[in-house]
Amino acid sequence: MTLQVGVIGAGLMGTTHVRVLGSAVPTAEVVAISDAVPERGEQLARQAGVDRVTTDALELIHDPAVEAVVIASTADTHEPFVLACFEAGKPVLCEKPLAATPEAARRVLEAEAALGRRLVQVGFMRRFDPAYGQLKARIDAGAIGAPLVMHCAHRNPSVPPAFDTHMILTDAVVHEVDTLRWLLGQEVVRVTVLAPRASSKAPAGVQDPVMVIFETDAGAVVDVEAFVNAQYAYDIRCEVVGETGTAALGAPGFVDLRSEGTHGTELAMGFQQRFGEAYARELQSWVAGIADGVPTGAGAWDGYAASAVCEAAVAALASGGPTDVALEHRPGLYATAGPLAGGS
Amino acid sequence: MTLQVGVIGAGLMGTTHVRVLGSAVPTAEVVAISDAVPERGEQLARQAGVDRVTTDALELIHDPAVEAVVIASTADTHEPFVLACFEAGKPVLCEKPLAATPEAARRVLEAEAALGRRLVQVGFMRRFDPAYGQLKARIDAGAIGAPLVMHCAHRNPSVPPAFDTHMILTDAVVHEVDTLRWLLGQEVVRVTVLAPRASSKAPAGVQDPVMVIFETDAGAVVDVEAFVNAQYAYDIRCEVVGETGTAALGAPGFVDLRSEGTHGTELAMGFQQRFGEAYARELQSWVAGIADGVPTGAGAWDGYAASAVCEAAVAALASGGPTDVALEHRPGLYATAGPLAGGS
Amino acid sequence: MTLQVGVIGAGLMGTTHVRVLGSAVPTAEVVAISDAVPERGEQLARQAGVDRVTTDALELIHDPAVEAVVIASTADTHEPFVLACFEAGKPVLCEKPLAATPEAARRVLEAEAALGRRLVQVGFMRRFDPAYGQLKARIDAGAIGAPLVMHCAHRNPSVPPAFDTHMILTDAVVHEVDTLRWLLGQEVVRVTVLAPRASSKAPAGVQDPVMVIFETDAGAVVDVEAFVNAQYAYDIRCEVVGETGTAALGAPGFVDLRSEGTHGTELAMGFQQRFGEAYARELQSWVAGIADGVPTGAGAWDGYAASAVCEAAVAALASGGPTDVALEHRPGLYATAGPLAGGS
Amino acid sequence: MTLQVGVIGAGLMGTTHVRVLGSAVPTAEVVAISDAVPERGEQLARQAGVDRVTTDALELIHDPAVEAVVIASTADTHEPFVLACFEAGKPVLCEKPLAATPEAARRVLEAEAALGRRLVQVGFMRRFDPAYGQLKARIDAGAIGAPLVMHCAHRNPSVPPAFDTHMILTDAVVHEVDTLRWLLGQEVVRVTVLAPRASSKAPAGVQDPVMVIFETDAGAVVDVEAFVNAQYAYDIRCEVVGETGTAALGAPGFVDLRSEGTHGTELAMGFQQRFGEAYARELQSWVAGIADGVPTGAGAWDGYAASAVCEAAVAALASGGPTDVALEHRPGLYATAGPLAGGS
Repeated sequence: MTLQVGVIGAGLMGTTHVRVLGSAVPTAEVVAISDAVPERGEQLARQAGVDRVTTDALELIHDPAVEAVVIASTADTHEPFVLACFEAGKPVLCEKPLAATPEAARRVLEAEAALGRRLVQVGFMRRFDPAYGQLKARIDAGAIGAPLVMHCAHRNPSVPPAFDTHMILTDAVVHEVDTLRWLLGQEVVRVTVLAPRASSKAPAGVQDPVMVIFETDAGAVVDVEAFVNAQYAYDIRCEVVGETGTAALGAPGFVDLRSEGTHGTELAMGFQQRFGEAYARELQSWVAGIADGVPTGAGAWDGYAASAVCEAAVAALASGGPTDVALEHRPGLYATAGPLAGGS
Repeated sequence: MTLQVGVIGAGLMGTTHVRVLGSAVPTAEVVAISDAVPERGEQLARQAGVDRVTTDALELIHDPAVEAVVIASTADTHEPFVLACFEAGKPVLCEKPLAATPEAARRVLEAEAALGRRLVQVGFMRRFDPAYGQLKARIDAGAIGAPLVMHCAHRNPSVPPAFDTHMILTDAVVHEVDTLRWLLGQEVVRVTVLAPRASSKAPAGVQDPVMVIFETDAGAVVDVEAFVNAQYAYDIRCEVVGETGTAALGAPGFVDLRSEGTHGTELAMGFQQRFGEAYARELQSWVAGIADGVPTGAGAWDGYAASAVCEAAVAALASGGPTDVALEHRPGLYATAGPLAGGS
Repeated sequence: MTLQVGVIGAGLMGTTHVRVLGSAVPTAEVVAISDAVPERGEQLARQAGVDRVTTDALELIHDPAVEAVVIASTADTHEPFVLACFEAGKPVLCEKPLAATPEAARRVLEAEAALGRRLVQVGFMRRFDPAYGQLKARIDAGAIGAPLVMHCAHRNPSVPPAFDTHMILTDAVVHEVDTLRWLLGQEVVRVTVLAPRASSKAPAGVQDPVMVIFETDAGAVVDVEAFVNAQYAYDIRCEVVGETGTAALGAPGFVDLRSEGTHGTELAMGFQQRFGEAYARELQSWVAGIADGVPTGAGAWDGYAASAVCEAAVAALASGGPTDVALEHRPGLYATAGPLAGGS
Repeated sequence: MTLQVGVIGAGLMGTTHVRVLGSAVPTAEVVAISDAVPERGEQLARQAGVDRVTTDALELIHDPAVEAVVIASTADTHEPFVLACFEAGKPVLCEKPLAATPEAARRVLEAEAALGRRLVQVGFMRRFDPAYGQLKARIDAGAIGAPLVMHCAHRNPSVPPAFDTHMILTDAVVHEVDTLRWLLGQEVVRVTVLAPRASSKAPAGVQDPVMVIFETDAGAVVDVEAFVNAQYAYDIRCEVVGETGTAALGAPGFVDLRSEGTHGTELAMGFQQRFGEAYARELQSWVAGIADGVPTGAGAWDGYAASAVCEAAVAALASGGPTDVALEHRPGLYATAGPLAGGS
């Protein structure tokens, strides 16, 4: 019954997925690993006790021993690898983004539509985070009435040197794009980006923080403060304001410490700490969904939408004014209005 | 030693001020009350044990028994009454707004500048709220580094029927305008207003909530969600994001209740409950400042600035795009850069 | 209309009361001050602009210019000074304890009973603290059902060198004794005191912390951890557990700070900071009660009961076992069952 | 590499363990199930896809296909089944209690000591709860100085009809006994139990709540309020007070809801919801410990100590006074002073 999984990419995310599959997903087994850098793939394979290692991801995808694929390689490889999984008829969990550009994501979406069945899940793990899950449950249960406004903050203590302004929008804010689409069940139609004075802690030339304002097809307004050199913690905030109340992510402190005149709780310093449980549930859900034949999580339509919205945000930052987003026609495979449901 | 105070306006705010002066300001005494409606002034005077009652505010202002004046009448009367106080050389606490238009506020500012000494304090009571006071103290002490972004929410459970979209900006958001100027010590240079789908709980034709974005001369970006038919509570939120941390108003619950599966605290339902202490401290500080000859709180420059920024917000809502704010030259009386300090 | 008040004792508490009367109680005026140490009384009188100063408290009490008296001198003087106020027929606010021993408190109680009207209020200021007031209001409103258990902590960062184990019970825990009697409306019938290993931060020979267990006539059990060298803050905790829920004092942080991996709020470091508002309301209520002829706050019966319970606690600490408390017959003046109501 | 596990007992806990092993412990597999009631064992085996089912637990223990055993049958069976596992030389995870009486637990302890290696882990799952784990980590890191006092509450909304006063001590408070021993690394030397008026929500004749006071060999005092008909939630509280600060379990709300005048978070209603993660980590750790040859979690010494302390608590409730606890000599296998470390 165990699902035989091949993992492409032995970097941080690939390693995380291999570890989580081995420690928290009893019904799956990693049987093959590929990485463009031979030593990297071999090292991870050794650690994980995996025999099949290759530098050729396509070989892994077409390997008959591999039943399903996790893609955690660089963004530019996502389109060809996902398309190869479609060819091989194998379910694939692709780290975000679905593809490097909206056009590429569109091609993936159409290729899947041509197949007539959902094969790809995009790695928006927040849909599987217990706190986000309960937030959605409360909103869907009517606890705050119809949502009107949503406030988000996405703060990292720091990021690698290569993380520039463009990546703040496409690698950080992209999570909020998916989150708002999923929580509200609405599509983004317009984006505006404001640029506060950049923090002196940000590398020269990087616009950090940014304030992004999204407007949706149902008239909701969503603001996202993205601040990836915020120093103090990895802090993800989200409050949805409805007609009769508001619901927000709680402050997740395990220990209340009273010391030296302060009453405090510890904050997470990285996404692994904050979203470790979400990654485990994402993989558990993906594996279970393959067994059941019922796809879960974000699909190609969500990957395409997120990509198109982020591209509009990049344009909005450059122009200083609002930029419209027009999602092209939605395949029948994704016929239901709104983003795909996912997570529990 | 007791300051003899005349109060103009016997409505909600005038009544509040008379009550607070009587119960919490030992060094002042209300000696005269005026209201355009005779019965209203007489009733309040009777309750407060005040002998001098009139329908003519100018008579009250020029009454030799009156040493200082509180103006709590309608906005259109503020300019003439404040100018009369200047003529009489009497200190005046004027409820916001300082005047009905930026031009009128400008005239008041220039009249005071011509006198060469500060006589008017504008009723921005949040500067005297203990929580806002500590927030400013922590920011000024460097606890979060240089401020870059500020998030505000201004929510009322409901408002009187006459409270329209214009008033959301000029009567509700005006408090955030003063708050941000005071907390950050910066001037607003641009305003944008976004209009989410209006709540079905708002009266027809009223745009509620609104999302207002301010940009300051030092590059800070401030978003304000104003929502005056929010149903659930009177909830004022404020978080300032600095280069190394964030500081926010705490959640001021007196009692932690655990009952029926919930762990909760009660929220305020009105501004009197939330800002009662601030009103008392405002009057105590104003009276003490008159005795010391050292003005405290917001001055005419702050009143003018708030008025100009709100007018720009009204224009921004109409245009849908950003509107610049240009404050005209600052009198020497207000020579210090930035808004006036105030509160504790 | 202004109440002419004489204050006995110019130490920390007397100075606090003079300051609060001058800044927050418009309907009272301090007209006389006495202290056994001439310089101390004179200094406070000078600061407060008071003419009448004496070293003879009885002179102050009998001075016709004095209408009401605040006693803030040492505990051994309370009995004679309160009795002198009774003789003079003047209302008196006496800092806790009502008298130095249960027997002395009993004599005060009987002297007042002989007069046939309530003249003394004991300075249990927590009854006027807004948080405790709301806690009582929620309990009385049935929010948690019938109370069964109550948990308290009384922590000071440190205390003066003379503060020994006896004082932990009679000066610190005495507040919890009054609080539990007032919140629950029950009398204490038994006390047990446990002695954990003493903190190395406590002076040699001082048993700090102590754990005190009270049982009431209605069967409630109350534990109080008293720890007066707790270092980290002045932290007063109280949770009442009822049949259907629990209610506790909230965590009163004005500012939420997120910095260096921690999400925290500041704690008070002293009782003035924590209970400043309570002291103001206590005096406002006492002065208003004199004008109305309706006594508020804790009375002589409460002072006697607190004293008897604390004496039992001292005995219980010595014996290591439970000690019963028997309150002698209750005067008709305090006929209502349970402790006196008070505070708002 | 997969550990072949047999599970004894197909009731609530056995079913939970089978489910968790199947969903969250990739390195283990349930291969056999036994239950005294044939249908119950068969039903669980069917659900879990397990072939080997029996009504004879000893047969399961001695089955060569079974490498390790989980005991989740009734308490009176624990001693013989654990002893049988010792005979078979198989690692065993035994739900608490280790045995039905301190004497029986003592026999198990000595049998294991005679074997000379640790084979049994007792199911005190809180040692694996992330919140308790962080609490211990902070205390061990010196964040609050040396612990002096500990406050606990153990509240269930309700319990099955058969849950009597005795079980409150042996089935509920037993968790706090293990928790305090583990968190403080100290042994209990004395127990006192106070009985407040029983809640009207408790069944007739059941003393609920109870207040239990433990004193340890290092002088710490620990109070535990156990209240198993508390109605409002499943609420487990723990605060440790040290010489310089306090550390407590945080309030674990995922969603902050503001609605109808209240700001609240949801509480758990059952132990599965609160400790689900702890059960998963307990089993993961047990399985990993078997592979590594390094036992984790509570051992036979801990099981014996908990049993002896609970028996003393039962005696203390009956006597109304303090009851001493004397743990008999500690086997060399558990030579380290203090309780066994465990959890992460």
